[in-house]
Amino acid sequence: MRELRFDPIRNRWVIISPERARRPSDYVIAQDDRSDKTVVVCPFCEGSEEKTPPEIFAIRRNGSKPNSPGWRVRVVPNKFPALQIEDSAIRYGMGIFDVVSGAGAHEVIIETPDHSKDLGDLDVDWIKDVLVAFRERIRDLFHDPRLRYILIFKNHRAQAGASLAHTHSQLIATPMVPPIVKQELTSCRENFRTKERCFICDLIKQEIEFGTRIIYETRDYIIWAPFASSFPFETWILPKRHLHDFSMLNDEELRDLAPVLKLCLTSIKRLLNDPPYNFVIHTSPPKFKRPGQPQHWDSIDFDFHWHMELIPRLTSIAGFEWGAGFFINPTPPEAAANYLREEIKNNV
Amino acid sequence: MRELRFDPIRNRWVIISPERARRPSDYVIAQDDRSDKTVVVCPFCEGSEEKTPPEIFAIRRNGSKPNSPGWRVRVVPNKFPALQIEDSAIRYGMGIFDVVSGAGAHEVIIETPDHSKDLGDLDVDWIKDVLVAFRERIRDLFHDPRLRYILIFKNHRAQAGASLAHTHSQLIATPMVPPIVKQELTSCRENFRTKERCFICDLIKQEIEFGTRIIYETRDYIIWAPFASSFPFETWILPKRHLHDFSMLNDEELRDLAPVLKLCLTSIKRLLNDPPYNFVIHTSPPKFKRPGQPQHWDSIDFDFHWHMELIPRLTSIAGFEWGAGFFINPTPPEAAANYLREEIKNNV
Repeated sequence: MRELRFDPIRNRWVIISPERARRPSDYVIAQDDRSDKTVVVCPFCEGSEEKTPPEIFAIRRNGSKPNSPGWRVRVVPNKFPALQIEDSAIRYGMGIFDVVSGAGAHEVIIETPDHSKDLGDLDVDWIKDVLVAFRERIRDLFHDPRLRYILIFKNHRAQAGASLAHTHSQLIATPMVPPIVKQELTSCRENFRTKERCFICDLIKQEIEFGTRIIYETRDYIIWAPFASSFPFETWILPKRHLHDFSMLNDEELRDLAPVLKLCLTSIKRLLNDPPYNFVIHTSPPKFKRPGQPQHWDSIDFDFHWHMELIPRLTSIAGFEWGAGFFINPTPPEAAANYLREEIKNNV
Repeated sequence: MRELRFDPIRNRWVIISPERARRPSDYVIAQDDRSDKTVVVCPFCEGSEEKTPPEIFAIRRNGSKPNSPGWRVRVVPNKFPALQIEDSAIRYGMGIFDVVSGAGAHEVIIETPDHSKDLGDLDVDWIKDVLVAFRERIRDLFHDPRLRYILIFKNHRAQAGASLAHTHSQLIATPMVPPIVKQELTSCRENFRTKERCFICDLIKQEIEFGTRIIYETRDYIIWAPFASSFPFETWILPKRHLHDFSMLNDEELRDLAPVLKLCLTSIKRLLNDPPYNFVIHTSPPKFKRPGQPQHWDSIDFDFHWHMELIPRLTSIAGFEWGAGFFINPTPPEAAANYLREEIKNNV
């Protein structure tokens, strides 16, 4: 039985998902995923559509049928879900502890039928279609009142948590707002309440003036090395236009985002020798007003600012990070921005 | 220049430590450390004392000289420190951002001169001496009013962040209380303010009654699988007696803790095939009252309860964890406790 349990000492929820693995012998240290590319039958390749659960969404050639070849981007439920849409979100106590049964969603966005390509290798129109798939899935799940957040993320290579080498992103929808997202929403809201301005809008303005942490700038976006980067070469894509909700972007706006994402991925791939990486989209939560639930984020239109965060996985995470929540970053973001700017200048 | 930078969106401090590594080519994916045992000259072995910075503390044979053979446990400054005691803690602003220059300490506790042994392999008197070294270093650093926290932790094997195979622990002292520790202190304090009881004392009482998550119990300690374990086989050592400060334990009390720690380490090693792991000691911060600083933890004697947290590193940390702060644990703590109880029953 999947459930979410509250840690009353660390003040955070944890997902207990016993269906995914459980015995001591089931744990093996992650190997590099490249070897996996020799596996004969990949469930994410064209022609293997029956090896995944039935598709939820796809961008397809006109006339091609669901769960058959002819797709560009395909979304399917995760075969080993951390949370399941069929479960109900029942909240209960257990002695001094608190539990919510694990309703949610866990989906896989297969970004291309081509096993040999990474997301950054796709052309910009194709990347736009991947972004459209992200948007459509968020829009659809916004209708489920049990869900408090819908997170899009990507794990590239085994060391970053990918269990299959064929390029894909994931979506996890949860019955509460995840801790880091909640912290970002809260920080932005508190700032807005004091100043009646968006903190991230302020930040973008300052950072363009300073210049030292700007990796790349287009009419609509900046690629930024965050001032307090937790990880070396941490890279954010920030839209200049204030908007709280990624899923409100139209096709044309996603078409403008695609080359920025491609540039970000390809420059990191070249500079750091195709490192494992994770990215996440931070956007506003669904805005249902629920009886007894104070945290419908009703002013979020003004105070949150969607963005993408990308973390190359270059350093190992040790006891200090787990035990204290303190991250040690050996490369100052100004140096990281410099290296990435040079990389882009020499290769674009 | 080492510095701590505040992330105003995620509301946490990050250590930027450019002396440790910086260029893109300096990052290589961690390899298993076992191969390292064939390295001819290990700086932590007896006879190589000149290969480390001069020792700060040691437990030695009578008559043996500092920085020469004859030691059981030896503490030296980290050669590549994340923070340095010589730096001053200057706090300043940078546009909308905040910085503290990086005063602190980073020390290595070499647990034995024997290169072939892990901490759990040592006999209980030796482990007691390691615990004495932890205590003495905390007591000493408590005198430095710039330091807000002293964290003891251990990284076992490269995948858990160890850069040398020779068994050792570390200490990092920081000019602010680390985020996770601060959250634990705050949760316990809020609970105390409502109930005038220690939350962790309540928790221990309930968990002994429930029994399902107790791995082992002695007169003075429980080994516990936390209700909301973030990681599979996460294991805590909790003292039954209420005490906020690990460094207040006397030699006899440390002698009682040693076999509990040994049992914890050896049962995890056997059950999970010598996995990489991290442990941390969570204890109260130094209690200086500083002008203008509200957060001297003045009631901490009553509301915090020191403990050790051990995390075997069995799963890879993916985009969902980094991007959302949500952990997915595939092994319920009740199952983990069961496996570890059986392991102990069959081998002790």
